[in-house]
Amino acid sequence: VIVEVVGVGTELLLGQIADTNAQWIGGRLAAIGADALFHQVVGDNLQRITSSIELALSRADAVIVTGGLGPTQDDITRHALAAVAGVALERRPELADGIRERFARAGREMPESNLVQADVPAGARTITPERGTAPGIVLDVGGRRVYALPGVPVEMREMMEGTVLPELAVTSGPATIQSRTVRCVGMAESRIAELLDDLFHGSTNPTIAYLAGGGEVKVRLTAKASSAEEAAALIGPGVETVLTRLGDVVTSTSDEELEEVVGRLLRAAGRTIACAESLTGGSLSMRLSRVPGASDYFLGSAVVYRPASKRALLGVLQETLDGPGVVSRECAAEMAAGARSRFGADVGLSLTGAAGPEGHDGAPPGTVWIGLDADERTHQRRIRAPGDRAMVVRWSEQAALDLVRRLLEGRPLLDAEPVVR
Amino acid sequence: VIVEVVGVGTELLLGQIADTNAQWIGGRLAAIGADALFHQVVGDNLQRITSSIELALSRADAVIVTGGLGPTQDDITRHALAAVAGVALERRPELADGIRERFARAGREMPESNLVQADVPAGARTITPERGTAPGIVLDVGGRRVYALPGVPVEMREMMEGTVLPELAVTSGPATIQSRTVRCVGMAESRIAELLDDLFHGSTNPTIAYLAGGGEVKVRLTAKASSAEEAAALIGPGVETVLTRLGDVVTSTSDEELEEVVGRLLRAAGRTIACAESLTGGSLSMRLSRVPGASDYFLGSAVVYRPASKRALLGVLQETLDGPGVVSRECAAEMAAGARSRFGADVGLSLTGAAGPEGHDGAPPGTVWIGLDADERTHQRRIRAPGDRAMVVRWSEQAALDLVRRLLEGRPLLDAEPVVR
Repeated sequence: VIVEVVGVGTELLLGQIADTNAQWIGGRLAAIGADALFHQVVGDNLQRITSSIELALSRADAVIVTGGLGPTQDDITRHALAAVAGVALERRPELADGIRERFARAGREMPESNLVQADVPAGARTITPERGTAPGIVLDVGGRRVYALPGVPVEMREMMEGTVLPELAVTSGPATIQSRTVRCVGMAESRIAELLDDLFHGSTNPTIAYLAGGGEVKVRLTAKASSAEEAAALIGPGVETVLTRLGDVVTSTSDEELEEVVGRLLRAAGRTIACAESLTGGSLSMRLSRVPGASDYFLGSAVVYRPASKRALLGVLQETLDGPGVVSRECAAEMAAGARSRFGADVGLSLTGAAGPEGHDGAPPGTVWIGLDADERTHQRRIRAPGDRAMVVRWSEQAALDLVRRLLEGRPLLDAEPVVR
Repeated sequence: VIVEVVGVGTELLLGQIADTNAQWIGGRLAAIGADALFHQVVGDNLQRITSSIELALSRADAVIVTGGLGPTQDDITRHALAAVAGVALERRPELADGIRERFARAGREMPESNLVQADVPAGARTITPERGTAPGIVLDVGGRRVYALPGVPVEMREMMEGTVLPELAVTSGPATIQSRTVRCVGMAESRIAELLDDLFHGSTNPTIAYLAGGGEVKVRLTAKASSAEEAAALIGPGVETVLTRLGDVVTSTSDEELEEVVGRLLRAAGRTIACAESLTGGSLSMRLSRVPGASDYFLGSAVVYRPASKRALLGVLQETLDGPGVVSRECAAEMAAGARSRFGADVGLSLTGAAGPEGHDGAPPGTVWIGLDADERTHQRRIRAPGDRAMVVRWSEQAALDLVRRLLEGRPLLDAEPVVR
């Protein structure tokens, strides 16, 4: 089954909001094996919305329209649907009652204009909203189907999960597109591509793709098959080959974030971690804490921007601050040890450096020292991260978390400076 | 001038990456007054890319194609351009030399396949890349123009800024679309819309739009005019009206993030801040630290997940932990005072609560205590945030930062629970 997504909203064209709906729907369609050949985005203009839906219907079996179902004057998707089907809009009393009730429950007066949300093209089916007030609209036109859903992500997703995807899955039959993503830290994309050059070369099923960014490289293997099992069987040997060839730079074979990998390893080992951060400003801590159940092993972090705070909260020595300074092996070591002891953790992890744009304490921008303090060992590593401030922060987090992964997996702890892409 | 954006890449359709390019380009086109009526996304298929570009050329003066200019077999945008223009590809020796040189400088061997990036439709102009290896391609077809740019955001942006936008600005003449965004915290979207109901009602220039999410509401006023000054004159009185009617819930009239507002106010007052966080896990700290120059006023944060850490790092009393517990007015007060004294800051800000999905220490999920400890005053406030864990965290940050804004602006400090949307 071929499905096309049409996003409605001038704010999308003006770049005022990101079209996250298209990405989410694309992923869900792939998971049920539906083919998406085109996406369209169109502004709040009746004629153009109508022509976009007509174009989509000319080349797809089903069209998913998002946005333009609200109560305001620029919400005109329902008019476009009526135009496409060549029917009139009719007010559905049961929908109008539902909208009135919702306002009454909230103790608010309902502007009469809100009732336009009860207007539906004649002959259309509706999808009852659980969270919002805008019902979804399902309309069959010339043997093809249009689903019109609200643009608010949670309202759209609820109707996709509850109605659209189950219906499309029946139509598309037993077919699926499955991907496995292998993530790697510490090796350049070009080197990875060289090592995997012959894998699936010239193949259209499975396929291999590389995606570099954020201090890691993702290798994605994708297969289309009649069942998830069959797709997995097509991809599985490839994943094994990738793992064998790339070795210990592989952080995950199931698309896990590095903080998830570290969390899983800490939990399995029954160990705890605490951090000391300066240049990352709390983002290392935030990544660790965001993993569900993180409070079992993540004890906390001291975000210390000033030398005096490094001393007061973590016990960094005054002679370290006066001597080698805050961007130094010594400072990283003392911060890691301080975090470990103050929080009573098994593993202390620290980051101190110059995120840029200026250098810091004599170190050029991008220079970062990472400290690791675990039961039997202490380790420091310097990296020189490329790019702007945000990139330096991200690379630093990746290198720090990867050091913990290596510790817990019993891999060699890197002390060389990593390859800069 | 009407411009259409065509994003090329199967990974976009499959939802594997977000189409951030379209959003960015949309924003930049609006800024120079170019009209974008449609966006398209198409997969890596020669026939479909060709037909998408042809469709765009049939309804726009200029087309911006992003993606598909790389060296691999699925990069076929250059072939589609040749097909649209009805010309052959020709290899440009100077481009080939440039690619060879780039590899030589990096000390790497160049796979021969990389030279396809020197293939350009006959008669086309190229844009020399500063960062990547893929040149941009500019092709005139039937009096209209196609710009093909790399899909990598930094490479695309460099060519947009350097070539495409300046050229389009000349064509589009003196016209611009300008927006002003007023941000509000602590008032529901529906209430804001009621208060501003008559503003620009039925007007198409300027227009008013509401966007709620992330614990705040944005009111966006947009005008199209022949100059930035004229557009500003159209919007300005509206912004004043919004400010007058909404009062002290307005956090910014220039689309600033709340951490930018707080940073600006701290800097102006010559004061410093330190935080103590539990449920937010470092994200409050990260937001504060991300503002350029934040190290002038942001001293750091103690991220304390466990009761013992709250005691050890912040001096929360054992009887508070045993008595009212960690989700309490007392704990928030002691955490804020502890952060202030340990970091030596002028303002201490704390957050402690139950982010969910479970409750915590007897408090239902979404219950959060915020503590503020400043020179002459101490203040605590409880909120009940809606939604899932991420939403509770975001609402908590907003409420906490807004309390600091109110303190520094001399506004009343809220102690009522905020309206839940």
